[in-house]
Amino acid sequence: MRRTDRAALLPVALERSSDKPMHRQLYDQLREMILSGRLVGGERLPSTRTLAKDLAVSRNTVAAAFDQLLAEGYLEGKVGAGSFVSGELPEEALATKGKIVDRDGATPRRRGLSKRGQRLASLRQPRGRRSPAFSVGMPDVADFPFDVWSRLMSKAWRRPPIDLLANAEPAGYLPLREAIAGYLRTARAVRCDAEQVIIVSGAQQAIGLAAHVLLDDGDPVLVEEPGYPGVRGALMAAGAELIPVPVDDEGFDVDAGERMAPEARLACVAPSHQFPLSVTMTLARRLKLLEWASRGDGWVIEDDYDSEYRYGGRPLAALQGLDRDGRVVYVGSFSKVMFPSLRLGYLVVPPDLTEPFRAARAALDDHPSTIAQPALATFIEEGFFAAHLRRTRKLYSQRQEKLLSVLQARVGHLLDVAPSEAGMHVMARFRPELAARMTDVEAVERARDKGLSLSCLSSYYAASNGHQGLLLGYAAVPEEQMAEAVDRLARVLEA
Amino acid sequence: MRRTDRAALLPVALERSSDKPMHRQLYDQLREMILSGRLVGGERLPSTRTLAKDLAVSRNTVAAAFDQLLAEGYLEGKVGAGSFVSGELPEEALATKGKIVDRDGATPRRRGLSKRGQRLASLRQPRGRRSPAFSVGMPDVADFPFDVWSRLMSKAWRRPPIDLLANAEPAGYLPLREAIAGYLRTARAVRCDAEQVIIVSGAQQAIGLAAHVLLDDGDPVLVEEPGYPGVRGALMAAGAELIPVPVDDEGFDVDAGERMAPEARLACVAPSHQFPLSVTMTLARRLKLLEWASRGDGWVIEDDYDSEYRYGGRPLAALQGLDRDGRVVYVGSFSKVMFPSLRLGYLVVPPDLTEPFRAARAALDDHPSTIAQPALATFIEEGFFAAHLRRTRKLYSQRQEKLLSVLQARVGHLLDVAPSEAGMHVMARFRPELAARMTDVEAVERARDKGLSLSCLSSYYAASNGHQGLLLGYAAVPEEQMAEAVDRLARVLEA
Repeated sequence: MRRTDRAALLPVALERSSDKPMHRQLYDQLREMILSGRLVGGERLPSTRTLAKDLAVSRNTVAAAFDQLLAEGYLEGKVGAGSFVSGELPEEALATKGKIVDRDGATPRRRGLSKRGQRLASLRQPRGRRSPAFSVGMPDVADFPFDVWSRLMSKAWRRPPIDLLANAEPAGYLPLREAIAGYLRTARAVRCDAEQVIIVSGAQQAIGLAAHVLLDDGDPVLVEEPGYPGVRGALMAAGAELIPVPVDDEGFDVDAGERMAPEARLACVAPSHQFPLSVTMTLARRLKLLEWASRGDGWVIEDDYDSEYRYGGRPLAALQGLDRDGRVVYVGSFSKVMFPSLRLGYLVVPPDLTEPFRAARAALDDHPSTIAQPALATFIEEGFFAAHLRRTRKLYSQRQEKLLSVLQARVGHLLDVAPSEAGMHVMARFRPELAARMTDVEAVERARDKGLSLSCLSSYYAASNGHQGLLLGYAAVPEEQMAEAVDRLARVLEA
Repeated sequence: MRRTDRAALLPVALERSSDKPMHRQLYDQLREMILSGRLVGGERLPSTRTLAKDLAVSRNTVAAAFDQLLAEGYLEGKVGAGSFVSGELPEEALATKGKIVDRDGATPRRRGLSKRGQRLASLRQPRGRRSPAFSVGMPDVADFPFDVWSRLMSKAWRRPPIDLLANAEPAGYLPLREAIAGYLRTARAVRCDAEQVIIVSGAQQAIGLAAHVLLDDGDPVLVEEPGYPGVRGALMAAGAELIPVPVDDEGFDVDAGERMAPEARLACVAPSHQFPLSVTMTLARRLKLLEWASRGDGWVIEDDYDSEYRYGGRPLAALQGLDRDGRVVYVGSFSKVMFPSLRLGYLVVPPDLTEPFRAARAALDDHPSTIAQPALATFIEEGFFAAHLRRTRKLYSQRQEKLLSVLQARVGHLLDVAPSEAGMHVMARFRPELAARMTDVEAVERARDKGLSLSCLSSYYAASNGHQGLLLGYAAVPEEQMAEAVDRLARVLEA
């Protein structure tokens, strides 16, 4: 049998009813035959006329498929002699056929990850859906003025100026940076102007960026013990070695940190409202921390993650405002005040670090999307942000009060709950009676089955012997649902 | 003079006409006196009544300032004895007064950056505003249907479902991932489903993420020489050691790469349309590259950055579609097709790597903002994306043709320009006459003074002896402005 005849008998089957165009079906099937070795190098294909006749399709259909195969190197054309399967395809490569990774296979492989990749993969499981009761850090998104937001978004994008479309600033949209600087100067006593503000997607990107600029791989960083896992993840991803430093009643213990890692040059703290212990760092400790940084050419990352919510008097001033030596990198976010999926946060960096931070930002992730920045700038400038803050501050304060009273009445014998002056959660430590019956990890698991999202205190410790307790987020739980939610919790703890 | 009297004489000056509330002014001034040492530890302040009288303000105003200073630890209160400056403020910290970094100072310091930070800071200067003629990679944003886009954004945010507001997926919004998977299967012959798609901000974040999962600090990566600086920056930021591998007429030279770094396990290439040389990698090389990856438990990052724009026939299939062994991490972006500041791109990862990539994504940057994702999903699903692509493809093809003809007529004796089958720029190599007079770097600098944004070929080489030439982006230059822009270029080159 001549080769051409053999090719003519190739099992090509075109479906006229398919969504896929005929020439594409033919291309796919011929390509598959070449890759699988059924058509081998040097083999001549039938002419387009012959194949078209055999398949009862137009000659254009066959020609289109052949052209594509020629263009991609599967076929070679010889003028007047027809089309041939390319002789230059390496045998080894063709031999990998059939090793396609099976999505439904029983044994998913974990091939070739780096050590860093394995560490990151094990670090923090992407969480599933959380219930409002009692998710930590979850705001009441139902309360957000989406009518205003939708209008601002639409307005920003109807006839956008060219500055919003291309050549965007690595540091972010200037009007938004100005609005943020104004807000921080007034509300947080941060000393800054718009030049020092860098827009990022959130605290993790902010801290990762700072770690890239200020640390080399393997450098130690002082972090709070217990502390926020997101901060730790971002630092570890940047190659930092974490030194967990105890937090006591005055906040982060600067002296202990210095003893534990005298060579450390970066500390990452939440002085306004430590997570998860809710301690406010004392002025003495603040000044000591700044002095530590100045003395050793070091740096402090101030994670001011939810300081907008303070219920006793006005918010405490930020650590950054005390800094006379440009040692503080301040980190804040809009996600908690507005809605988590917004993903807009910011850094305020010392004036002489703005250029290195911008350049590093450009190298790591070019610039932030401009999609939400103009609407957010207007939202702040026109007072919607402040109004939303006032409204939710009042709402959350009432919800905390309600939660505390219901908890006290229903599970006061099991949990020791203290009011919190700030933030969106309270901490409930296990009383001995409860601690004797279950761990906080067990409580979290049992609660999940009842549709409650709890966080346990022990999980925020790097050490394995952390204190036992629960963090109860209340911001997203309407007052009238509080008693029912606490009742579900009580049944978990009493079980 | 009694201490109280001295305090009463403190130089407090309140401005009634200021925007800043009176209690805030008083707080600020007292705090400054404490920090500057004018009020020392143990010193007693006048009573609120006395100070209110002295300053002619209400007693509430003074009380508010004192309360804040007490809350923050600057003052200590003793019941019945008044308020005292705190004795616990560490002397060293107070002594740092006056060292405030001066923004306008003549000698900006570069203090305490890490080696990595210095490398990143030097890597790529954030660019200023670029002109459409002849910016590389700049699409025609004027042509984008912002009426549709604005409507879709407004609609998405008027009554957003809870899934868009909180608990978002680390991998991105599922309807968008489905739309992307559908598009890639049809248009790029990528084999994937939505589970394999991970939304990111762009190619840099995509490549950085892949490098974190697949590489450890210091591991070698094969990159194209010459190649795209954004790719190199993202890899270097992730700690990779770059091995620049020559690109010849068949594309990335796999054998050379293997000789140069036998231990390398990752290669980062742009097979469809190499940047900046516009070479398409041959099928033989593609198969060889995949075989190289399979053999050594290695990986290939396929940067498919502008393959939407192919003018001769339909786009070539992606390398990923040839991969039988799950070795290819595919990277694409919407920024070039829509508008650069959108900052939405994606990875398609092998099925068994979806979990590690999601977890790493969550650790590095939680999840992508949901702000633009639903509108983009609808934009694709309802055919606006394909229509925009068709329209711009035609437009850019005409613009390239126009640019080539004008260049040939006006500076054909200086530049050797070849048509490009794909992308948004052409490459113009220096003819000997021009090369004898100036370098491509000089041409770029002179052109900048004439308001032209050029890119030079030599700058894309890691080696210092790269070829001389210019990259001319034409996508954003209307046909009727082409002759004038080329004329300006001619005057630069003839000078």
